[in-house]
Amino acid sequence: MPDTISTTVSPLRSLEVLSQHEVNRLRDTSKAGLHDLLRRCSLAVLSSGSMTDDSLVLMETYHDFDIEVIQQDRGIRLKLTNAPAEAFVDGKMIRGIREHLSSVLRDIVYVYNEIQRHSRFDLTTGEGTTNAVFHILRKAGTMKPGRDPGIVVCWGGHSITREEYEYTKDVGYQLGLRELDICTGCGPGAMKGPMKGANLAHAKQRIADGRYLGVSEPGIIAAEAPNPLVNELVVMPDIEKRLEAFVRLGHGIVVFPGGVGTAEEILYLLGILLHPDNDDMALPVIFTGPANSAEYFQRIDEFLVYTLGETARSKYRIIVDDPIEVARTMRQGIDSVTEFRRAHQDAFHFNWRLTIARDFQETFEPTHEAMAGLALHRNQPVHELAANLRRAFSGIVAGNVKERGLRAIEAHGPFQLHAESELMRRLDELLGSFVAQGRMKLPGQEYVPCYRLV
Amino acid sequence: MPDTISTTVSPLRSLEVLSQHEVNRLRDTSKAGLHDLLRRCSLAVLSSGSMTDDSLVLMETYHDFDIEVIQQDRGIRLKLTNAPAEAFVDGKMIRGIREHLSSVLRDIVYVYNEIQRHSRFDLTTGEGTTNAVFHILRKAGTMKPGRDPGIVVCWGGHSITREEYEYTKDVGYQLGLRELDICTGCGPGAMKGPMKGANLAHAKQRIADGRYLGVSEPGIIAAEAPNPLVNELVVMPDIEKRLEAFVRLGHGIVVFPGGVGTAEEILYLLGILLHPDNDDMALPVIFTGPANSAEYFQRIDEFLVYTLGETARSKYRIIVDDPIEVARTMRQGIDSVTEFRRAHQDAFHFNWRLTIARDFQETFEPTHEAMAGLALHRNQPVHELAANLRRAFSGIVAGNVKERGLRAIEAHGPFQLHAESELMRRLDELLGSFVAQGRMKLPGQEYVPCYRLV
Amino acid sequence: MPDTISTTVSPLRSLEVLSQHEVNRLRDTSKAGLHDLLRRCSLAVLSSGSMTDDSLVLMETYHDFDIEVIQQDRGIRLKLTNAPAEAFVDGKMIRGIREHLSSVLRDIVYVYNEIQRHSRFDLTTGEGTTNAVFHILRKAGTMKPGRDPGIVVCWGGHSITREEYEYTKDVGYQLGLRELDICTGCGPGAMKGPMKGANLAHAKQRIADGRYLGVSEPGIIAAEAPNPLVNELVVMPDIEKRLEAFVRLGHGIVVFPGGVGTAEEILYLLGILLHPDNDDMALPVIFTGPANSAEYFQRIDEFLVYTLGETARSKYRIIVDDPIEVARTMRQGIDSVTEFRRAHQDAFHFNWRLTIARDFQETFEPTHEAMAGLALHRNQPVHELAANLRRAFSGIVAGNVKERGLRAIEAHGPFQLHAESELMRRLDELLGSFVAQGRMKLPGQEYVPCYRLV
Amino acid sequence: MPDTISTTVSPLRSLEVLSQHEVNRLRDTSKAGLHDLLRRCSLAVLSSGSMTDDSLVLMETYHDFDIEVIQQDRGIRLKLTNAPAEAFVDGKMIRGIREHLSSVLRDIVYVYNEIQRHSRFDLTTGEGTTNAVFHILRKAGTMKPGRDPGIVVCWGGHSITREEYEYTKDVGYQLGLRELDICTGCGPGAMKGPMKGANLAHAKQRIADGRYLGVSEPGIIAAEAPNPLVNELVVMPDIEKRLEAFVRLGHGIVVFPGGVGTAEEILYLLGILLHPDNDDMALPVIFTGPANSAEYFQRIDEFLVYTLGETARSKYRIIVDDPIEVARTMRQGIDSVTEFRRAHQDAFHFNWRLTIARDFQETFEPTHEAMAGLALHRNQPVHELAANLRRAFSGIVAGNVKERGLRAIEAHGPFQLHAESELMRRLDELLGSFVAQGRMKLPGQEYVPCYRLV
Repeated sequence: MPDTISTTVSPLRSLEVLSQHEVNRLRDTSKAGLHDLLRRCSLAVLSSGSMTDDSLVLMETYHDFDIEVIQQDRGIRLKLTNAPAEAFVDGKMIRGIREHLSSVLRDIVYVYNEIQRHSRFDLTTGEGTTNAVFHILRKAGTMKPGRDPGIVVCWGGHSITREEYEYTKDVGYQLGLRELDICTGCGPGAMKGPMKGANLAHAKQRIADGRYLGVSEPGIIAAEAPNPLVNELVVMPDIEKRLEAFVRLGHGIVVFPGGVGTAEEILYLLGILLHPDNDDMALPVIFTGPANSAEYFQRIDEFLVYTLGETARSKYRIIVDDPIEVARTMRQGIDSVTEFRRAHQDAFHFNWRLTIARDFQETFEPTHEAMAGLALHRNQPVHELAANLRRAFSGIVAGNVKERGLRAIEAHGPFQLHAESELMRRLDELLGSFVAQGRMKLPGQEYVPCYRLV
Repeated sequence: MPDTISTTVSPLRSLEVLSQHEVNRLRDTSKAGLHDLLRRCSLAVLSSGSMTDDSLVLMETYHDFDIEVIQQDRGIRLKLTNAPAEAFVDGKMIRGIREHLSSVLRDIVYVYNEIQRHSRFDLTTGEGTTNAVFHILRKAGTMKPGRDPGIVVCWGGHSITREEYEYTKDVGYQLGLRELDICTGCGPGAMKGPMKGANLAHAKQRIADGRYLGVSEPGIIAAEAPNPLVNELVVMPDIEKRLEAFVRLGHGIVVFPGGVGTAEEILYLLGILLHPDNDDMALPVIFTGPANSAEYFQRIDEFLVYTLGETARSKYRIIVDDPIEVARTMRQGIDSVTEFRRAHQDAFHFNWRLTIARDFQETFEPTHEAMAGLALHRNQPVHELAANLRRAFSGIVAGNVKERGLRAIEAHGPFQLHAESELMRRLDELLGSFVAQGRMKLPGQEYVPCYRLV
Repeated sequence: MPDTISTTVSPLRSLEVLSQHEVNRLRDTSKAGLHDLLRRCSLAVLSSGSMTDDSLVLMETYHDFDIEVIQQDRGIRLKLTNAPAEAFVDGKMIRGIREHLSSVLRDIVYVYNEIQRHSRFDLTTGEGTTNAVFHILRKAGTMKPGRDPGIVVCWGGHSITREEYEYTKDVGYQLGLRELDICTGCGPGAMKGPMKGANLAHAKQRIADGRYLGVSEPGIIAAEAPNPLVNELVVMPDIEKRLEAFVRLGHGIVVFPGGVGTAEEILYLLGILLHPDNDDMALPVIFTGPANSAEYFQRIDEFLVYTLGETARSKYRIIVDDPIEVARTMRQGIDSVTEFRRAHQDAFHFNWRLTIARDFQETFEPTHEAMAGLALHRNQPVHELAANLRRAFSGIVAGNVKERGLRAIEAHGPFQLHAESELMRRLDELLGSFVAQGRMKLPGQEYVPCYRLV
Repeated sequence: MPDTISTTVSPLRSLEVLSQHEVNRLRDTSKAGLHDLLRRCSLAVLSSGSMTDDSLVLMETYHDFDIEVIQQDRGIRLKLTNAPAEAFVDGKMIRGIREHLSSVLRDIVYVYNEIQRHSRFDLTTGEGTTNAVFHILRKAGTMKPGRDPGIVVCWGGHSITREEYEYTKDVGYQLGLRELDICTGCGPGAMKGPMKGANLAHAKQRIADGRYLGVSEPGIIAAEAPNPLVNELVVMPDIEKRLEAFVRLGHGIVVFPGGVGTAEEILYLLGILLHPDNDDMALPVIFTGPANSAEYFQRIDEFLVYTLGETARSKYRIIVDDPIEVARTMRQGIDSVTEFRRAHQDAFHFNWRLTIARDFQETFEPTHEAMAGLALHRNQPVHELAANLRRAFSGIVAGNVKERGLRAIEAHGPFQLHAESELMRRLDELLGSFVAQGRMKLPGQEYVPCYRLV
């Protein structure tokens, strides 16, 4: 039995001034359909220190955890039952975690109402979707007028080696020394390392307002909980809006070694950057890792050139084992982004100009049918193939770590994927290399593939 | 010909981060129906230093003034043509006025869209209306979590004697020394004096974040422009919501001598406080003025007791010629309000508990028919009579200073009012005493009554 | 009998962290020789609202006032007996006044020890004296690294007409609108008006950190107490160091109409600016007043040209009845000062480059002998004549308002002044015009000259 | 050859506003006797990232490093020649290191002048010495009025095992979670770990103003350079004043495993706490380390009880391998300190009440004669024995790491120590156990004792 604590806490800041209507709506909705979502996301946030990436295990461990919104004292309070004790110090919740809980409440319950029930956001169009992404991010306070571009999005695996983890810290440290901020998808590994490094560097540079943005979504937050360094947490409604948030918020992107999830993100990114409308878009992209993870990017690089062509290669730069070079290149790249935005009178805080094809915005539900139906061949426009490959990887991630995916695999066995033969071979090889490199699960667990290439 | 300046300025703060949708909507709506409203309110704000309370004169003087919302530079800008030169210092707009212009834009164009086009605010119900008032005030940033109650609403005439004006400054000074903030309806006279006094006192007490709230509405803002000391300006959609804003925001109310408008506000306030639901409500109300304006409150006092009964008198206290006593009493009263809210777990920043009958929320359009149809007799519940008297005074104010009312009087002659004979006599006497005291117009102009008692 | 309060207050800020030695020294010195000085200056600060400029009257009115430094509660506290009630609001001292009391304590007791007992300041040399002035001002926190030049020193009479007072407010208002700060010698009249005006303008321009520096000295502070708007008060050891503080701190100087004191300041200033070393010094100087005080500056102007020559006239500009022109000229002048300091790598916060001849630094004790011995003829270098004239005026100021001077005149009759005949005639005429203009005393009191021209 | 950079930097903050006298004095003194001191301390600060604790090696590596104070641009600048490149990022000095350089300049050059040349500090008396310590610390800004007690002084070795280092981080983390600040002697190992841990915890608790005080002295700073996390650096004039600074600044003390230096600090501390005047003094002291360093404190504990008696044991608590228990105990202890200080009206920021015998304030110069002459027997008062043992350990530290000590040992061979036989045996055993535990030097280097027991 884990240590737990039952208590009542106040949420923070923007949730303090609510109308009576809003309080009632919060309470109603949390009783009704959103309660389960709120409960799962809150548990993820509260157990951010624990060392598991298996959300089923987490839910079982704290099966009697509950959260309730109650009205009290001129505002709302959160009643927690059997919450993980590690979120508290001598009975008082760590302030960073209390902030995360408030962010979850804000995004899950409040923003959901505003965005999804409102006619003003037409989520069936690209414009309406982008608008919704903008409003959620603005509500979360991520847009700071007057602040110069400096957000580096870091992608990479949550299940990486100690050496790779130390490398992500070193890169974060060098980025932080150059006064850059970090945005990741939350969770351990490559999501946490850069923040730890940057936090140390910001302390040395006496930067008191360094930003550590965590952008998550309900399906992944349990597996990849925000570490408490994250000082701005946003829970986007789904994986596609989360990806869109990354590319519209970030002023540069660093990709560390990872597994299928990282490959998914890379395909998403290249699919967008290869769109003709984005030809001249300023957005520095760097793939990097320590010396002995060079193979990972070499394999990806080969696969990308085979599937998406030589142009794809011009969109990123691979730097091996050189954190200082990574940080310098990124600093220069972001300086160019700043000039580009100024020249085009574009906003600093949200990349409106970037064209994201509808394919990349639509939610992909990785059922067995949907996975089996993906068109994985080169006889289609490059960005469509990228979109389909992205979906394939997305489904595999779901099968590996997301609750619904895990249950689907338990019920129906592995996904079946159909692809043209050479692409099939290369895809198999790539995925095989991930397994060989131990990139599919936390160390110590054996990997059982959740897919079959047919 | 007045001095004018044509230029382009940026709005401030919250308007900096807008979505493309919002910018477009702003531009569209400002082109369409709201343009005229925006133009009139902006002109009022820009000419806040000029000494006229006749909005028609103002509009004629600056007949070629115009304002346009344009998109430029990562945001919106305001293009001003032939704007009053007094809003500028060496070609640069005074920052306080620029803030007011931003507030007008926010409230007139943006909030209008949100409130009036949205199904979530049912403005035909009391609850929906109060909710709308709350949202407009919250959007304007008037709710400061963590700040103790301390807002003193000051009512009174904009057309008062020098001596009365100095007295309002003295009271404001004594309130400010006691760390209280001022909220008025904008404009000169009793709306400005307390702010000037409090501003000086705050400087002496080294209070850097003193609040000077101005709550206006489109029909009155031209006649009663915000003086630049106002550091929080809200433009409510109509006079009833403006009055509701005063009584829900304020923690205490001081009424200075005024004219019909002040009488209207007094009747509004007593009509609410006499509602049985509000029996135990903590809300200090003080009527005060210098020695030689004692008659004004004596007349009102008599009229109130005759029409609304002896109980009405228990809801206010009259203090003559003693600013220190006013401020001490208000300070103690607000301390009691704080205790009351704490005891009832009520919000500090918005008086949700106060019951406001539907009568007092509904817009009263003072046409000649409506004025003639008012039931002005004592054969009805006290709060209904208060509501009807309030409407009568409201109509007279419109006929005196509001553009639409002025035009109606020009076209159809004075309003006709029907009342039971003794009440008629007393009403006539009261209004007559206002004229005798010179409380109907700015000094120097002769008053032509806009009503006739029939 | 005036209302008084006896209580104990804590000093503010920098006095909180004292060593045990320092606390003991404070207590000792305040018991010994400095006690009387501390008592007089404290009383001046505490009675800043009262309307007298006669320090003897003040001392008599509050003859049983006392102040004692006591050690209590991890620090020192001030025990006040029979302090003027006007310094308190409902029993609590106004914070601005509490700050002034702390400043007095800091400067009178603490700085006195540091400066006057230390071998490191050789007050018999120009360099040592300037160094002492610098240290006192730095200790008082008047030097703000990183702030651009913007301090306008305002000189002028404390006993001026209502119209002149309103004019000083208007000029202060226009200076404040242009983001300039005000420094005066404390007291009423031309010392207070510019601050009131600037305070209002700063509020309109939303400048929260506007500076209102008051520079006083023990002999004058009782007659010219700091009004509570002063948010930085420095008590210099004597009148010469106070004058040096003005010209080294200020980035521009505005002179309003005044009396002999103002004439003294003008002669001090011109004596310095006419020194050959200061030929190219950037320091804008403007003499200004409303239309009907034009004569004052005309008389001064004539006297200056006669005594100091035509060159003197190039050092100042006279602007009559035009606050906006004054403020614009000053803004431009200070922009030039900024460029000048940048070009010469001079400090922004202290004008080290200005040469001040030893004559102008030496304390002048206006005994009857000293006054009678002044060489008032044109047969000497211009700056020496300026120095002597300055001393003559200084003596007259002492005879008019300073306690010691008043007592000397009481005991020995008026000062005797010897001058060459034409200069004598003009001096007589000038002083006569001051009397005729009512510039020697507060309105309502008859002026009895404290000097005789022989 | 190491990478070096030659450049010119501005010092920070308090050094910006200097008088011309002060600038000249800075330049003169830095040219004269203090130049060498300034150069050595600056080099230590600039090479804080390098991994050596041998100051001779450091000085040789950067033998052509130089620093010069030059006057330029309205202030002073520091001209650096051949400075370690690691202090810079892309040519710009890391801000934290720039702050340290400013602190060194302030303390070495400026404070030295004020303290040592002034008659007001009589350094031959206890009171004068304590007063000097107070003034240096106040000048460095370490006293924050209004901040509650919360400074935990951490002592322990700079040369500890990885496991011990991780343990110090864990303890620092738990202290930081409980909102406590860290003060150490600078350098690596147990001086750095607690700061790193606390920095992470402060980030999680959203404490933006966490304090990391480093208190050093010229003889040790090269061997134990401040890591850049230190955000308040003070360089005390000598080792005794540094120790006094620790015990008067700190509100609680944690001792981690170390070597002789740590033993010296423990003896210093107990010598003071055993003084009869300090009987009731509230000051929590905890000795702690991971499980496998338990022996270190067991040996010390035995030695202390043998030499200083059973009472000594009541002054500290040993907690093995339990960071949470350490932090909770310290938090409670400091809460008691706060109550104690309140009850006695003592200052929060400086422990004036603590009696420090003259023995512990006097500089001990560890020459061969002085070491040989130490009275190491139990036939003397406990606190005198503690003082002598402390001196013995101090000499050994000098012989191990300080430049002058190293040179003395090179010239004359090891120090000779005389002690009574049983004490001699136990001392030998204790020192032997330090060697056996590898606590005399950085790992990898063989330890050659710098002393001989005779």
